[in-house]
Amino acid sequence: MAFSLLRTEGQARRGRFETANGPVETPVFMNVATQAAIKGGLSSEDLERLDCRVALCNTYHLSLRPGAQTVKALGGLHRFMGWSRPILTDSGGFQIFSLASLRKITEEGVAFRSHIDGAKIFMGPEESIRIQSCLGSDIAMAFDECVKLPAPRDYMASSCDRTYRWLVRCRNELQRLAGEADTVNPGQQLFGINQGGTDRELRLAHMEKIAALDLPGYAIGGLAVGESTEEMYETLDFLLPEMPADKPRYLMGVGTPENIVEGVYRGVDFFDCVMPARNGRHAKLFTHSGTMNLKNERYAGDDRPIEEGCGCPVCRRYSRAYLRHLFKAEEILALRFGVIHNLWFYNHLMEDIRRALEEGRFEEFRREFYRKREKD
Amino acid sequence: MAFSLLRTEGQARRGRFETANGPVETPVFMNVATQAAIKGGLSSEDLERLDCRVALCNTYHLSLRPGAQTVKALGGLHRFMGWSRPILTDSGGFQIFSLASLRKITEEGVAFRSHIDGAKIFMGPEESIRIQSCLGSDIAMAFDECVKLPAPRDYMASSCDRTYRWLVRCRNELQRLAGEADTVNPGQQLFGINQGGTDRELRLAHMEKIAALDLPGYAIGGLAVGESTEEMYETLDFLLPEMPADKPRYLMGVGTPENIVEGVYRGVDFFDCVMPARNGRHAKLFTHSGTMNLKNERYAGDDRPIEEGCGCPVCRRYSRAYLRHLFKAEEILALRFGVIHNLWFYNHLMEDIRRALEEGRFEEFRREFYRKREKD
Repeated sequence: MAFSLLRTEGQARRGRFETANGPVETPVFMNVATQAAIKGGLSSEDLERLDCRVALCNTYHLSLRPGAQTVKALGGLHRFMGWSRPILTDSGGFQIFSLASLRKITEEGVAFRSHIDGAKIFMGPEESIRIQSCLGSDIAMAFDECVKLPAPRDYMASSCDRTYRWLVRCRNELQRLAGEADTVNPGQQLFGINQGGTDRELRLAHMEKIAALDLPGYAIGGLAVGESTEEMYETLDFLLPEMPADKPRYLMGVGTPENIVEGVYRGVDFFDCVMPARNGRHAKLFTHSGTMNLKNERYAGDDRPIEEGCGCPVCRRYSRAYLRHLFKAEEILALRFGVIHNLWFYNHLMEDIRRALEEGRFEEFRREFYRKREKD
Repeated sequence: MAFSLLRTEGQARRGRFETANGPVETPVFMNVATQAAIKGGLSSEDLERLDCRVALCNTYHLSLRPGAQTVKALGGLHRFMGWSRPILTDSGGFQIFSLASLRKITEEGVAFRSHIDGAKIFMGPEESIRIQSCLGSDIAMAFDECVKLPAPRDYMASSCDRTYRWLVRCRNELQRLAGEADTVNPGQQLFGINQGGTDRELRLAHMEKIAALDLPGYAIGGLAVGESTEEMYETLDFLLPEMPADKPRYLMGVGTPENIVEGVYRGVDFFDCVMPARNGRHAKLFTHSGTMNLKNERYAGDDRPIEEGCGCPVCRRYSRAYLRHLFKAEEILALRFGVIHNLWFYNHLMEDIRRALEEGRFEEFRREFYRKREKD
């Protein structure tokens, strides 16, 4: 079994997921490197320094540029981007439904046009898995439809059924490819994705069906796409107890530091979100007492680091005043510094969460987490 | 005496210039950090790693943003940008004549409008030196007029005379400020700037006058501004022998690797140029056999580093194919990698030049330098 539960506290879990490129200590936040690079000018070397444990890359983007066969010929994504720790690739489904135009969904898959050059492309479960196999990620995500909410219940129900059939096809294709002689990463593992919006019945029925496939891990898709935070937590509340306890649970595209603490509290193991990098590029920086906007005039002469006591490479050497100057002067270094600080914050938040779980004081950690934020 | 000649070979010199923030081993290439940051997302920590010896910052830009008083209140540029090695600040003259609009030159100085917000600003020798004193650089450059070539000889002659009078005022103001109790860097040293276009008589007469002021160093300004490389070398040929041998000589804004080798050959000690960083951001990368354009299709599947044997942080870990992908995908990391490689190339070219001079084989180094380039 690839996943082992090391310790639990309430619903929260401290675990370890074994991959072909080393173990993932959970709960974990995956750093989003869409095009095999973190936006804001961070390299895989930087990610190591920020204690990033898993990089998340994008099947849709990488299949368009530089192309799956190019990456395969270069030995796969790990070698391509100089990153030796685990990589998860999403399936491309979410991007096709959010970026591409002229989509047409059939039982076979999705026909669409590239958002780069308008080229006609078809991607179904087999195509997505073949691309992910070329990329050689450690965790491949199932190809699914991410339905935009609100959606008619009938449509959602038939979409869930199709996503299940697609999942079976994904599994079969990955099994077939694992046996090929030139497969980049024969240890690649498939995570299924639960859908169903915020509809309890659909979610649970879909979850039950995909759980029966006994996949290495399960993700919750289609949340954090417009519904309220309350609705998201409610969905987690009824869904997580019904997910296999012996498999990692991945809450896709979530979220704020609060969302992560609440997700862990409810039993989530994997997270990813573009927010820390995106906010960092816009001078919105995370601290334990909340977020700050470094472009604010009040920081113009502020000699202190972003957060006192922060061990990140930016806080150890540079002041708020210098960062504000870089943002105002539109230096690329500003983006880089913002992203470095925020990813450090997220990765070390996870480190703190893991330690709290190990020491059986996650409940205390969660209280303290909110207490610090109230002080702001 | 701040400057000592350690060894010479023909006109070429291996020297050492002492500053308040440590010695500068010459010949040296100064890395251009216009707004207190290297364009392309490089930090002062990166500069250390690239073996940058001197950072060059810009009086004009920094006086507009974040403002001289702000930097002074924060302890000066070294502390502001987290850089403990020497800093040279240019005077702002060149930028006023190339970026600002509505210039009016009088004996007092230059009235102009900010290129950022159109604000009316006046800068003369005293203003420039006061700003540079607030910045606390180790080497302050004299405030001069950089005449656009070609220019009427009469105008050039009167400009040279005025630039000389401005130089005397710069020296007096710096002396006055060095005695102030709250001066950021009491050890700040002034370099005079020789002007006169490519006119031998004007150049030599101006050089003689400014040499008599016995300043810590002398720069050659107004070259590499449109004249041919041949004209530039001819100017160096007649000018350098007439510059004080016991003072460092700084060829401003120059240039290509060939220009630098030729400059050293003729007796230049200091160089600076935006070219390596600018080219790096445009995928034009320097190697010992010439430049390559990483956007070229031929590198799409090329698993080799930019240059075999290069010890830079990019070549040690990433392939041409990965870099090309980053450029095509318009990732900021592409700019950063391009600049890192090119600045490493320049800084290590200087390192190689210094070692060749120490070992009395610069002439051989220069032959080998051209031989490698012919192979391309």
